[in-house]
Amino acid sequence: MTHYNYPKFGAGLWHFANYIDRYAVDGYGPALSTLEQIQEAKKVGDLSYVDIPYPFSPGVTLSQVKEALNDAGLKAIGITPEIYLRKWSRGAFTNPDPVARAEAMTLMNEAADVVRELGASYVKVWPGQDGWDYPFQVDHKQLWKLAVDGMRELAAANPDVKFAIEYKPREPRVKMTWDSAARTLLGIDDIGLDNVGILLDFGHALFGGESPADSAQLIIDRGRLFGMDVNDNLRSWDDDLVVGTVHMTEIFEFFYVLKINNWDGVWQLDQFPFRENNVEAARLSIRFLKHIYRALDKLDIAALQEAQSRQDAMQAQRIIQNALLSSIEVE
Amino acid sequence: MTHYNYPKFGAGLWHFANYIDRYAVDGYGPALSTLEQIQEAKKVGDLSYVDIPYPFSPGVTLSQVKEALNDAGLKAIGITPEIYLRKWSRGAFTNPDPVARAEAMTLMNEAADVVRELGASYVKVWPGQDGWDYPFQVDHKQLWKLAVDGMRELAAANPDVKFAIEYKPREPRVKMTWDSAARTLLGIDDIGLDNVGILLDFGHALFGGESPADSAQLIIDRGRLFGMDVNDNLRSWDDDLVVGTVHMTEIFEFFYVLKINNWDGVWQLDQFPFRENNVEAARLSIRFLKHIYRALDKLDIAALQEAQSRQDAMQAQRIIQNALLSSIEVE
Amino acid sequence: MTHYNYPKFGAGLWHFANYIDRYAVDGYGPALSTLEQIQEAKKVGDLSYVDIPYPFSPGVTLSQVKEALNDAGLKAIGITPEIYLRKWSRGAFTNPDPVARAEAMTLMNEAADVVRELGASYVKVWPGQDGWDYPFQVDHKQLWKLAVDGMRELAAANPDVKFAIEYKPREPRVKMTWDSAARTLLGIDDIGLDNVGILLDFGHALFGGESPADSAQLIIDRGRLFGMDVNDNLRSWDDDLVVGTVHMTEIFEFFYVLKINNWDGVWQLDQFPFRENNVEAARLSIRFLKHIYRALDKLDIAALQEAQSRQDAMQAQRIIQNALLSSIEVE
Amino acid sequence: MTHYNYPKFGAGLWHFANYIDRYAVDGYGPALSTLEQIQEAKKVGDLSYVDIPYPFSPGVTLSQVKEALNDAGLKAIGITPEIYLRKWSRGAFTNPDPVARAEAMTLMNEAADVVRELGASYVKVWPGQDGWDYPFQVDHKQLWKLAVDGMRELAAANPDVKFAIEYKPREPRVKMTWDSAARTLLGIDDIGLDNVGILLDFGHALFGGESPADSAQLIIDRGRLFGMDVNDNLRSWDDDLVVGTVHMTEIFEFFYVLKINNWDGVWQLDQFPFRENNVEAARLSIRFLKHIYRALDKLDIAALQEAQSRQDAMQAQRIIQNALLSSIEVE
Repeated sequence: MTHYNYPKFGAGLWHFANYIDRYAVDGYGPALSTLEQIQEAKKVGDLSYVDIPYPFSPGVTLSQVKEALNDAGLKAIGITPEIYLRKWSRGAFTNPDPVARAEAMTLMNEAADVVRELGASYVKVWPGQDGWDYPFQVDHKQLWKLAVDGMRELAAANPDVKFAIEYKPREPRVKMTWDSAARTLLGIDDIGLDNVGILLDFGHALFGGESPADSAQLIIDRGRLFGMDVNDNLRSWDDDLVVGTVHMTEIFEFFYVLKINNWDGVWQLDQFPFRENNVEAARLSIRFLKHIYRALDKLDIAALQEAQSRQDAMQAQRIIQNALLSSIEVE
Repeated sequence: MTHYNYPKFGAGLWHFANYIDRYAVDGYGPALSTLEQIQEAKKVGDLSYVDIPYPFSPGVTLSQVKEALNDAGLKAIGITPEIYLRKWSRGAFTNPDPVARAEAMTLMNEAADVVRELGASYVKVWPGQDGWDYPFQVDHKQLWKLAVDGMRELAAANPDVKFAIEYKPREPRVKMTWDSAARTLLGIDDIGLDNVGILLDFGHALFGGESPADSAQLIIDRGRLFGMDVNDNLRSWDDDLVVGTVHMTEIFEFFYVLKINNWDGVWQLDQFPFRENNVEAARLSIRFLKHIYRALDKLDIAALQEAQSRQDAMQAQRIIQNALLSSIEVE
Repeated sequence: MTHYNYPKFGAGLWHFANYIDRYAVDGYGPALSTLEQIQEAKKVGDLSYVDIPYPFSPGVTLSQVKEALNDAGLKAIGITPEIYLRKWSRGAFTNPDPVARAEAMTLMNEAADVVRELGASYVKVWPGQDGWDYPFQVDHKQLWKLAVDGMRELAAANPDVKFAIEYKPREPRVKMTWDSAARTLLGIDDIGLDNVGILLDFGHALFGGESPADSAQLIIDRGRLFGMDVNDNLRSWDDDLVVGTVHMTEIFEFFYVLKINNWDGVWQLDQFPFRENNVEAARLSIRFLKHIYRALDKLDIAALQEAQSRQDAMQAQRIIQNALLSSIEVE
Repeated sequence: MTHYNYPKFGAGLWHFANYIDRYAVDGYGPALSTLEQIQEAKKVGDLSYVDIPYPFSPGVTLSQVKEALNDAGLKAIGITPEIYLRKWSRGAFTNPDPVARAEAMTLMNEAADVVRELGASYVKVWPGQDGWDYPFQVDHKQLWKLAVDGMRELAAANPDVKFAIEYKPREPRVKMTWDSAARTLLGIDDIGLDNVGILLDFGHALFGGESPADSAQLIIDRGRLFGMDVNDNLRSWDDDLVVGTVHMTEIFEFFYVLKINNWDGVWQLDQFPFRENNVEAARLSIRFLKHIYRALDKLDIAALQEAQSRQDAMQAQRIIQNALLSSIEVE
């Protein structure tokens, strides 16, 4: 029996929260504190890292979080400032109100401090309320300038901390400002600082009509892949389903690209199991991700690259199916 | 100056609420009671009807609602039982738990009583949590049977009340059971009762890849158009934007079909102005709907029908643009 | 080693043609005659059936086709009248010109004769040009009436022949009249004849936002599943890719539903390998379909149904991944 | 009566061709020569420019084209090399075969010569076959490198000619390499030459989930808007419908952005009227575009900009509806 040296697995701590939406306004379950969520994450058994929303739940202190992480055998990989709450419902960086923008900046600077305190890798910046809802609502030039300038200001003020922008086409805003890999890279070029990069969410790329594998390559080639998240969806929305439940081939291609580029970061979950047991959802995910890891081990990469050099889709698929569906060969 | 005999306008009472979603978990504004929402609706000035969610907000009684409606000069057109709260997050009619199904039935029967008390037109049934999230999650035959049988049981128990199913492709469930006009009509055929019909939401039809005008015609031809809602979206989600802000031509075609079929119900708003002033959003909508009404008055219907008999899209568009953009002719 | 009793495999004969589109107007390869296409189909090695477009290519006779099929060890499962050529670019059943409609009827009656001659199972009716392109172009009531009445006339004139409607959301028409499973079943109810059913194309259902498994169940429950096609796509268009290259889980669920309903027809390919070797594309498909067949054999159906009775998505996915990715358990 | 100084109008010459697709393989009408298409374009009456595919139809010479343009009162704005015919069905710049790539380069260099001969503004480069169809088919790094390097080589060899890349998400390739505004700008940055820019197609941007107005602003801000095309679609495909038939508001916003940036190029049609009279389709378009031009004249830009500075969508919509639906104010 082969022994596999699996990668480190992580999860957004919200994976272990309960959720609310515009219809189930009483929530899909009782609210859980940051500390309770960490205890749930511990139960998974295979997690090494969590990405922690900030501020913590009411009354929870940084030292309590440190202790809870320690007890659970978990480390913080990132801190996610909640710049999408009511105060920023009309935007964080791009809010028309300078006071709201300043308050967002304050929260993100605090998040940078928490990164320092916890020895995390990055502040994850996900400005989900930055953008627009209606045609003609905004001056697009001004909106983009606010987005880019604000990110530069934040990163320049914290040169020792990495900032990972997580792009997404939309939601909650009808259209988000940082909406795609290419647009985000353009903005990063304009910012001109080394400590701004991308957290690539597999599902966001798929939702945006990208090939997540291609996006990973593009971002890596510019040295900006600071982190990544996986999940699944039906391509038309950010469903945040359990990874592997719909798009087995494309997630396999995504991890293949990471492998051949020697990208060795944390394999991280960003899932919203609204109606499922959160721990079971994480376990199903990691079981599938281990299968992907083993399938990459089985994959005949030389033969695949030869087929790709001819853009021979039929041969490439035959080769990858041999690895992904390993029984397909033997019977 | 022409005097126009405009139709009655209505709105889902939630148009005047504040919202919450999975990110802005502290809400887009403070929660408003049923009575406060009615007072907001009054401010619009042109509304005659509201569709009221049930149960009312905590502590509010039926007699208070009656009085508030009376004060505001409003009538209830429909009552919407909230069969999508936490208790039914895994489904109302199709919940795997018979206890949850029974509780949903109880709530809907109470809603029927409120319809009787308020002299409203229908119970609106929108089972947004009925459906599935993952491939292989459900036995599709059983799920559909639960949906159809439950609706039949409800309608049979209340033969004096109309039940208007509001279909939608998805959200909050990844896939809803009652997802389209045709599927809903199939189910209604199976139910076999006269008091089950459809509330056609313009945006849901658009989101589902239907022509809302075609769906209206199909439903009318089977005698099942019990009500309708309008709003707008970018076709890929139920954005519930202000009507007329994106799809002017298709909303015009929708009302054209209602007119030639002599459908004379309430023109009703189902909008979620997350970040806008709710009253202003309603006023902008009604201003646009009045324009549509006037444009229908200007429309050369005989010429349009002649063009349609030849399926002459260019001529049909020329004719409808003359009415919708009335200045296009004169300059 | 287990010996498997695989189902019969088939393919639309066009799988072995070359294609043309609005850009590569000189075609993706030289045109092939009906007889040449049959010879290509033979090379696949695992095909038993073909669905043959009619009219045959210029100069080819019915007896030549019979002989070629015989030589290739193939049978006709269906005949597809080409009611989407230039003459019917504005519609076959729904063409505004009664002469064009009559000509379409003539061609389809001839196709019924070919079905009789070749002992095929059905005339496949795919009215891809029936529908509309622009808002306001058509009178939706009249369009639907033409579609339903024409189909009834055709079926009534050939009571000994089955007619299988293949629905699709769109293409080449911007919107097709027979666009979904539910709409087609509604129309079939209105037609009221036993010899009209559905050919369910997996990719069309996926493209239309349906669960193909759910659609199969719905159609089977009404006794109308006359045939089926498989392929794959990215959900937003009828890409007609090789089956299994994108949606492994959903194709598995589709065949699971066929199995538990004891549907034992031909597993048929409807693929357009524009830039691939057609024979290789068919072989890759059948290799994958055999894997699906074996995975169904491994699947713990009792356990799956127990999980589905609780709508337990996590457990259901664990069970089906055990079968689909059979190695996932053993290592 | 106001006299308007309308912009110059143009059209892709293919607007006046007949089309073919994968179903209507005998074409939607008889093939027309380049010269015949120019004669049709003349009939429109309001066209000043055409974009001409190259090579011309068989037997047609450059001097004949010059003469025909002269007779018709038309000028060439661009030349579009047909790098998407059979020879390049697996790609022009990104074809795995270096011979095919070299042949594409030859054709594009010839197109540059025609631009010089006709005094046109640019070679339009639309590599619709460059990309991929299947997951794992290509090495994404290599594919992008071929795309960028090839474009640089072409532009460097013709420093006196402008090259306008027309991006599109997909079709005919399942995924195109130059798929969005931002990705194309990234590539242009990598190319590093001043004579490479973008032809922005309104419908392609809409299809790709972009705000065409935002894309126009982004491209203008980098000095790369070399040309533009308009049309319409249902957002999920490049339908190439007549402009204004679906998205009135967003086309208005698009031209608004051009106006405030003083972009004064040709307003050009890229439509495929498959089943319509081509001349009528162009006339309907230009009639609508003149309405847009007049509406821009009526638009209260100062008030709009004030509303946009507050991101006040309701007020912005009220203002633009006053201009677009000019009658909305007066009755």
